[in-house]
Amino acid sequence: MESPVSAFCPNYHHAVELIGRRWSGAILRAMLSGITRFSDLTAAIPGLSDRMLSERLKELEAEGVVVRTVIPDTPVRVTYELTVKGRDLVEVVEAVSRWAGRWPAQPPVPVPF
Amino acid sequence: MESPVSAFCPNYHHAVELIGRRWSGAILRAMLSGITRFSDLTAAIPGLSDRMLSERLKELEAEGVVVRTVIPDTPVRVTYELTVKGRDLVEVVEAVSRWAGRWPAQPPVPVPF
Repeated sequence: MESPVSAFCPNYHHAVELIGRRWSGAILRAMLSGITRFSDLTAAIPGLSDRMLSERLKELEAEGVVVRTVIPDTPVRVTYELTVKGRDLVEVVEAVSRWAGRWPAQPPVPVPF
Repeated sequence: MESPVSAFCPNYHHAVELIGRRWSGAILRAMLSGITRFSDLTAAIPGLSDRMLSERLKELEAEGVVVRTVIPDTPVRVTYELTVKGRDLVEVVEAVSRWAGRWPAQPPVPVPF
């Protein structure tokens, strides 16, 4: 096979595990669809707990992918939005979605261990 | 923001966590670059242990992304190759690589907890 990529790239390695960490890919997709509120994220993603969402949003914020804004209304409102870096993931989310559409999840084939 | 994707898709969710599980993204990239042997994979990916590589290859095999072939030479040789489904991930790996190239990993910004 002609080699389209180098065998290893540390920036790729960091990025693919940031996006693919448990729940993060689903959270990024929901935010790309326009969701900005904590409770709307947990409502959109089946099985995602408040605790896990909070942990993942902090990680994505630390990576510069998400920005948290506190709006001093009464009551205080908090929104989560993708940064430019985060919105730039749309190409990745779409590529994964296309692949997933071509190869829908099947029950795993048992492999002898 | 115009919504390019639906908020949630179970096939996408499964796919992004398959690809992004610890080491799996790096293994898939190394295999797309043409590596087919266990020892060449551990040599190419810094920090990847034999135990973790073995575990991940079994997962990828169970998902139909990798096929393991035993060649009855003396000594027996074993190769790991991407299936058609696995090679079809090239678009995803390239999209992640492009994003990672545009946004190289930085030390995380501390976020107050």
